[in-house]
Amino acid sequence: MAQSGTPVWRSIRDTLASEIAQQGLRPGDRLPTEAQLSARFGVNRHTLRRAVASLVDEGLLRARRGSGVFVAMQPVEYAIGRHVSFHQNLALAGRLPGRRVNVTARRPADPVEAQALRILAGEEVWVSEGVSTADDQPIALYRTVFPAARFPGLDERLSRLSSVTAALNEAGLAEFLRAETRISAQTVTVAQALLLNAQEGQPLIVTQSVNTDMQGVPVEYGTTWFLSERVTLITRSEI
Amino acid sequence: MAQSGTPVWRSIRDTLASEIAQQGLRPGDRLPTEAQLSARFGVNRHTLRRAVASLVDEGLLRARRGSGVFVAMQPVEYAIGRHVSFHQNLALAGRLPGRRVNVTARRPADPVEAQALRILAGEEVWVSEGVSTADDQPIALYRTVFPAARFPGLDERLSRLSSVTAALNEAGLAEFLRAETRISAQTVTVAQALLLNAQEGQPLIVTQSVNTDMQGVPVEYGTTWFLSERVTLITRSEI
Repeated sequence: MAQSGTPVWRSIRDTLASEIAQQGLRPGDRLPTEAQLSARFGVNRHTLRRAVASLVDEGLLRARRGSGVFVAMQPVEYAIGRHVSFHQNLALAGRLPGRRVNVTARRPADPVEAQALRILAGEEVWVSEGVSTADDQPIALYRTVFPAARFPGLDERLSRLSSVTAALNEAGLAEFLRAETRISAQTVTVAQALLLNAQEGQPLIVTQSVNTDMQGVPVEYGTTWFLSERVTLITRSEI
Repeated sequence: MAQSGTPVWRSIRDTLASEIAQQGLRPGDRLPTEAQLSARFGVNRHTLRRAVASLVDEGLLRARRGSGVFVAMQPVEYAIGRHVSFHQNLALAGRLPGRRVNVTARRPADPVEAQALRILAGEEVWVSEGVSTADDQPIALYRTVFPAARFPGLDERLSRLSSVTAALNEAGLAEFLRAETRISAQTVTVAQALLLNAQEGQPLIVTQSVNTDMQGVPVEYGTTWFLSERVTLITRSEI
């Protein structure tokens, strides 16, 4: 297999890379074991490991402690722009958007939520929590709150309709805009790992956003925990 | 100490919270040991731990495995807008900006850099790597590349002047704009922990940005690793 001048590990690396490029190995697939690959290529494990390590460095493969090596997913490119729609963002990225609502409740706003929504602490909010999916794979957890006084019956709309945008539209808000987004990072907790089908300790991008109506009045305050392996946020400056 | 109706742990929590608010305990300070605090409040460790755990949950305190509990730092608020200046951003946040350059080199662009800068792979770039500081505390690592053909002598300017903006200005570029930023998250590696004076595994916000001149031609491609504990990124929509 090795051509003159090309180290054996590099030939193996190039073979695996082209199998990934041609989708013989697909995003999310587990790589065969070291023993299987060593046998297939007729090399020792040291040589095989060098080829695999090179592809991990380049980001084509991803090692998960205790569970093997996988073909890296292409992260969803998620635009943080002035106009806000998870469904539209996912559709633009060529993915099928989905949502699983785990909790919808009405309760008094905590001080942070009240400040973000410019209501009094203790005024009631609708709270919706769940998992956002792309092509049925979990990519993010979200918790979002809305002033209850402004949107009576929103809980029923959030449960029945497929997107927050659709629920707000039906509640009489034809359009809304993203005012500010705060971005930080965390690592996946045990509870989040189960919901995201991910590993504890993996990095998360955390966004906190306030959305307003066209008069600048806050209508939604949301926090989203994006699994960084599956989502890249993008901000573009409009000229 | 406990008032009727107030659990003891909550009184302790409230006392510690007000000491933090009044800066008797300051950001970055290490909390006295459990033994010291138990003695001071005249409670057992179980009660004390409940008070401390509550403040950790709220983000006022931060536990570092093996080294104790610390008063949380207020993260620097860092705006990702169309205009780009680390110095200006820090000054707006009331912090003293600083930079330690670790590497300045000239080398061929790798394929990703070449694509971002719209030059040919193999054309040369200036590479500058270092640590960004706020009030002399490390808050981020950066690596940034510039097309070498367009900016002769930029290495000397980057070394001599206190900011990238100043170096580009002196090189004849009066103004530049942020075109696109890609945001992901990672965790701190052993090598990064030393440079950032942080712990391995802490979450990082990672930004990759392309800056352009006023004609839209790329002049800089930069990656920044912000320690999430010390920096919050903010995007605001201009109306």
